[in-house]
Amino acid sequence: MNPTSDTDLIYLDYNATTPIDPRVAESMMPYLTRWYGNPSSNHAQGQATRRAIDGARSQAADFLGASVSGMVWTSGGSESNNHALLGAARLAGRGSRIITSAVEHPAIAEVCRHLESEGYAVTTVPVDGVGRVDPDDIRRAVTGDTALISVMHANNEVGTIQPIADIAAIGRDHGIPVHADCAQSVGKIPVTLDALGADLLSVAGHKLYGPKGVGLLCMRDGVKIPNLMYGADHELGRRPGTENILGIVGLGTACALAQEDLEDEIRRLTALRDRIETGLLEAYPAARVHGDRTPGGRLPNTLSIGFPGCRAAEILAHLDSVAISAGAACHGAGEIGSAVLRAMGVEPQHAMGTVRISVGRMTSAEELDRAVPAIVRAVRQAGSA
Amino acid sequence: MNPTSDTDLIYLDYNATTPIDPRVAESMMPYLTRWYGNPSSNHAQGQATRRAIDGARSQAADFLGASVSGMVWTSGGSESNNHALLGAARLAGRGSRIITSAVEHPAIAEVCRHLESEGYAVTTVPVDGVGRVDPDDIRRAVTGDTALISVMHANNEVGTIQPIADIAAIGRDHGIPVHADCAQSVGKIPVTLDALGADLLSVAGHKLYGPKGVGLLCMRDGVKIPNLMYGADHELGRRPGTENILGIVGLGTACALAQEDLEDEIRRLTALRDRIETGLLEAYPAARVHGDRTPGGRLPNTLSIGFPGCRAAEILAHLDSVAISAGAACHGAGEIGSAVLRAMGVEPQHAMGTVRISVGRMTSAEELDRAVPAIVRAVRQAGSA
Repeated sequence: MNPTSDTDLIYLDYNATTPIDPRVAESMMPYLTRWYGNPSSNHAQGQATRRAIDGARSQAADFLGASVSGMVWTSGGSESNNHALLGAARLAGRGSRIITSAVEHPAIAEVCRHLESEGYAVTTVPVDGVGRVDPDDIRRAVTGDTALISVMHANNEVGTIQPIADIAAIGRDHGIPVHADCAQSVGKIPVTLDALGADLLSVAGHKLYGPKGVGLLCMRDGVKIPNLMYGADHELGRRPGTENILGIVGLGTACALAQEDLEDEIRRLTALRDRIETGLLEAYPAARVHGDRTPGGRLPNTLSIGFPGCRAAEILAHLDSVAISAGAACHGAGEIGSAVLRAMGVEPQHAMGTVRISVGRMTSAEELDRAVPAIVRAVRQAGSA
Repeated sequence: MNPTSDTDLIYLDYNATTPIDPRVAESMMPYLTRWYGNPSSNHAQGQATRRAIDGARSQAADFLGASVSGMVWTSGGSESNNHALLGAARLAGRGSRIITSAVEHPAIAEVCRHLESEGYAVTTVPVDGVGRVDPDDIRRAVTGDTALISVMHANNEVGTIQPIADIAAIGRDHGIPVHADCAQSVGKIPVTLDALGADLLSVAGHKLYGPKGVGLLCMRDGVKIPNLMYGADHELGRRPGTENILGIVGLGTACALAQEDLEDEIRRLTALRDRIETGLLEAYPAARVHGDRTPGGRLPNTLSIGFPGCRAAEILAHLDSVAISAGAACHGAGEIGSAVLRAMGVEPQHAMGTVRISVGRMTSAEELDRAVPAIVRAVRQAGSA
C-alpha cells in the first residue's frame, strides 16, 4: 500500500514531489491498458476517453470550487504559470507591468525575468522575516499599466502562506487580475477560487499524489487570457494537443481524494511536522526554524530548519536513509544559498545549514522517530567535517 | 495482449491515436507504483527517476539518430510544433517569415495564423493532386527574411510523404532552419535527422504506441531556438517543469520498440492496407483513393478513400463495429470538408464521402476481412439516406 516502503528510504521530501497515491494509480490503469481512443474521435474508444476527461474535470472543478469550463489541463505547474503570466502580459501589451513577490518559484520568477527582457516591467515586492508579503506593499506597487498580480499561495521552501484573499481584494479594487501559484498549497490547505478570491490558480499534479506531467490552470469565469500554444480546438480552444488521458484521470482522482478528508489530514500533518520539529530542536537547540510559526501561518507539512555551523549539502551527504532536501528540489540551492531565505533576511550562517523536511500522506510517526536521530547524526558529522 | 480485443470494436484509426503497446505499459509500471522521486533530487528516489529519464533519452536519440543533448521532452506534438515555430519566428523577430505547406496539421497551421496576427509573414506553398509539395515552390518562396521552413513529413489524412530531404537541402543552401512535423511518420517509415536532413523534428508519443501527453522536439546540434516556457533549469534549460516520468519512460520504450522491426512492420502494414483498399475498391468500384499511391509515396498504414454520393459523417453513423474517421480526429472535418482534400483539388463530391482508415501494430488480416463488408454496408446505408 505504501509506495515508500519499497525502498529503505524514509521519504520526507513531499514538497519536492509526492508518490502517486495507489488509488490514483488504480484509476489510471484502465487508460494504460484498455481505453486509448482519441477523445476527439466519435467512436466507442474516443467516447470512453472523452467521458474520462469530463469526469476528471468535474472532480477538479468541485475541488477548486470552479466551473468545469474554467479548468484548463496543462502539462504541469510550470506551464500553468507560464500560461497565466505570459498571457496576461501579452494581452496588456509590451510595457505593461507584472507585480510579484521576492519568494516565488523559478516557474514564476524566471517568467518575469524573461518578460523584463521583452520590455515588460516587473515589480517585486519584498517579504518580511517569516517570508510573508505585506498586502500594503502590493497596493503601493499598483500602477495604471499593471497587467497581473502574481503571488504564490504557499512557499515551497519555508511553507509560509501568503494573504492571497487580501491581495485579490486589491486586484479587484483596481480591476487587475490576480494569479496564485498553488502548486504547494493545494491538498495541504483549503484552496478554492472563492476562499482565495483570485482569478487564476496554478495546480501541479505531482505535488498532490497525482502523476508528473499534468497540471491545471483554473480560471474564474470571464477571465480572458490568450493562449500559450496554438493548434486544434482542444480545451475550448485554450490549449491544443491530444489530451493527456492518464495524467488527467490521475489528477482528477487526486483532487477527489484530497477533498475527501482535508481537515483531518491537516491536523495529522501538523502533528507529524510538530513532532519532527520538536524532536530536532530538543536534540539540537541551536537550530533555527524558518517561516511563519504562528497557527495557520505555514503549510502544515513543512519544516525549514537551519543548523548553524554546517552546510546543507554536507548534511545530505551524510544522510542515506532519509530523503530531505537542501532548499527546493527544482533548483539546487545548497551552495549559492536559498533566494527565499535571502529575501527573508536570514543571515548566511543560519541559511547555509538549512534543510527542508516535508511530510505527507504516507508519513508515519514511527518513521519520524527513526528520522530524527539519523538527521541529528548527519548534522553532527557535517558540522565536524 | 491486444488492447483492442477488450472491446468489440475493430480499431482502424491508428492515425488518430494508437493503443499503448503492452510492453510500453509494462515499462511504465514501476514509475506508477514504486519510483516517484523528483529527478532533481539527489536522494535515492530522485536518482532512480533521473536514471529512467536518461535511459529514455538515449532510446529516443538512438531511434532518431540524434544526440541525447538534442532531445527535448515536451507535452506532445502540439507543444513541439509551437516551440519550433514560435521560437524560430521570435528569434528572427517580428516581420520575419515562415514558409509552410497547405496541408499541415492545425498544430502548425494555427500557429502560423497566430504569427500572422502578431505581424509575421507566412508563405503557404500549395500541393499537387496527390498532396505533395514541390520543392521548387519552396525554393521560390525563400526570401531574405525567412526564419523557418516547416513542412510535415507525412500527412495525417491521406498519408502522402513530403520530400523533406530536398526541402532541407534548400534550407541548408540558404542558411534557413527546416522543421518537419513527424507526428504521423515516426514509427511508420524511417525518421532520422540524417535521412531527413532537417534541423528540427516533432514527435508525438501517442501516435507511436506510447502514452498521450508526451512528445519530443528533436534538435540538431547547434540549432538555437528560444524557449516556449521559462522556469527552473530542466532539459538543459530549454523546457521547465518537473519531468513527466511516466510519459518519458513510455515514449523511450516506444522508440526502442519501433526501431526493432521497422522494415518488417512497413511490409506488414503495407500488405494490410492494400488488403482493405483492394477489398473496398472491389466492393465499391466508384470509390476513389486519395494521396500518392506510387510505391513509397504515402504512409504504409493509411488509406483515404472517398465514396461519392454520401457524407462521411453518415457513413460513420452507420458503423458501430469499426473505428475509422472522417478526416482527422483532431478537427472534425466531416461537414465543412477536409482542408487537406481541398488543397489537393479534390472535388467536393469526392471529398465529402471520404473516410480515413489507418491500420497499425495490432491490426490483423482477419479484422480487415470483417471490416470491409461492415464499411461497405455503412456506405450503402449512408448513400441511400
